[in-house]
Amino acid sequence: MPEDNGIIRDETGAQTLLGYIVDISDGDGKGRCHLDIGPQHGNRHGMLHGGVISCLLDNAMGYAASLTGDPEGQTKFLTVSMSTNYIGAAPQGMRVTATGTVRGGGKSTVFVDGELHDTEGRLLATGTGVYKRIRGQ
Amino acid sequence: MPEDNGIIRDETGAQTLLGYIVDISDGDGKGRCHLDIGPQHGNRHGMLHGGVISCLLDNAMGYAASLTGDPEGQTKFLTVSMSTNYIGAAPQGMRVTATGTVRGGGKSTVFVDGELHDTEGRLLATGTGVYKRIRGQ
Amino acid sequence: MPEDNGIIRDETGAQTLLGYIVDISDGDGKGRCHLDIGPQHGNRHGMLHGGVISCLLDNAMGYAASLTGDPEGQTKFLTVSMSTNYIGAAPQGMRVTATGTVRGGGKSTVFVDGELHDTEGRLLATGTGVYKRIRGQ
Amino acid sequence: MPEDNGIIRDETGAQTLLGYIVDISDGDGKGRCHLDIGPQHGNRHGMLHGGVISCLLDNAMGYAASLTGDPEGQTKFLTVSMSTNYIGAAPQGMRVTATGTVRGGGKSTVFVDGELHDTEGRLLATGTGVYKRIRGQ
Repeated sequence: MPEDNGIIRDETGAQTLLGYIVDISDGDGKGRCHLDIGPQHGNRHGMLHGGVISCLLDNAMGYAASLTGDPEGQTKFLTVSMSTNYIGAAPQGMRVTATGTVRGGGKSTVFVDGELHDTEGRLLATGTGVYKRIRGQ
Repeated sequence: MPEDNGIIRDETGAQTLLGYIVDISDGDGKGRCHLDIGPQHGNRHGMLHGGVISCLLDNAMGYAASLTGDPEGQTKFLTVSMSTNYIGAAPQGMRVTATGTVRGGGKSTVFVDGELHDTEGRLLATGTGVYKRIRGQ
Repeated sequence: MPEDNGIIRDETGAQTLLGYIVDISDGDGKGRCHLDIGPQHGNRHGMLHGGVISCLLDNAMGYAASLTGDPEGQTKFLTVSMSTNYIGAAPQGMRVTATGTVRGGGKSTVFVDGELHDTEGRLLATGTGVYKRIRGQ
Repeated sequence: MPEDNGIIRDETGAQTLLGYIVDISDGDGKGRCHLDIGPQHGNRHGMLHGGVISCLLDNAMGYAASLTGDPEGQTKFLTVSMSTNYIGAAPQGMRVTATGTVRGGGKSTVFVDGELHDTEGRLLATGTGVYKRIRGQ
């Protein structure tokens, strides 16, 4: 559950491990994940690891999907497929934010786009994903 | 650098954080990553997180790309794009293995497929990726 | 409906326009599309157009999905998402074959891989797709 | 070469066959393709074929890539990879427009997003693609 201010921490094991913060405080239906890049997120080149980028995009897009079900984003969806384009590199010490925006779909299948920016507004990656609502909710 | 037996641990910050093991011991040109799923890898449903799945596939595919440059997989490549299809869920306590196989390309751009299986041989996810060699090596 | 020999021609407007042949004669659950490349399929470089490649892969993968519903591949599925990697170019005068293979999924959502080869066995493109069964059939 | 008004017809065999019109008249760096859907573009459901949708998106995105090289979009690029999400169906008799927008990249590799809308502004599909400049131009 989000805190009163729309910030969600430590909701899953993976979130605690990677250390990103989910932010649905804007109430605009978008999912956001913030990460302060540390050495534990690095790839061979010392930059933010591509797998971590996909992880952030998947979480932001998945939260956007969940927000179609209820305003606190607790409706459960599974990722069916996702694609990522890696546009730019992000060094340690920088904060990045992944933003997921629903583009279409219905009650069970939702199509979402994602973008990863740094604090200076540079676009580092884009993603697209398909999310499916878990039945019985 | 790999150990004598082709096992690579803690090469990057992200590898240490997630705890997977890279394995190029087979000498078949494929990259493999093993992960023993723990609670720190879980999603909202308590299963292996989709972002971690993409991370494992990206690493296995990236290693396969690097193995086109030298037999120890030290040639550096960047991920240009990747896609993942999420076929099945993996519970905690299970070991999963991502395998990357080069399908084509040249010296600078390499096309790789990836698959994630559990120890019982079930296919949990498939991926495709494009990798680009970093110039000047 | 397929002819007795498992060959399907002119089933859709797009099939007639592009001129490919669907082939489910092998009975192995795979969908296949053959195309003899002519000048009408060319891109700016005079090679087989990337959009036509995606079209062939989509058809072969979609037929593989339909074959999970009935042995003549008449069960209707929609494409939810697909990705294509373009590995090699194909000149006019060559025959190419797209092959779709189901990798997993259930009754409603099916995950399929696709490959495009020329008659000499060269791999020209790979694809992955998610297909959804149309309800009420 | 575009006509004086930025409209391009019959540039390739595939363009003539499918019958779409390329439009770079806006001078905003975006590539656009218009198609009036006829029975020759139909799928099994009588709607615009998914493969044709991918084809339109690929063309619009490829033109956006080419416009990074020169203002008439004549610089040649190849599609490296692309992904499509199929959001909505389009019936015959409707005009659809695919729009490609460059999101990043450098001189040789360009990342492009694409969208397909109908004349009422409905979003029918989204795409992402990676395009590579052909050397020696």
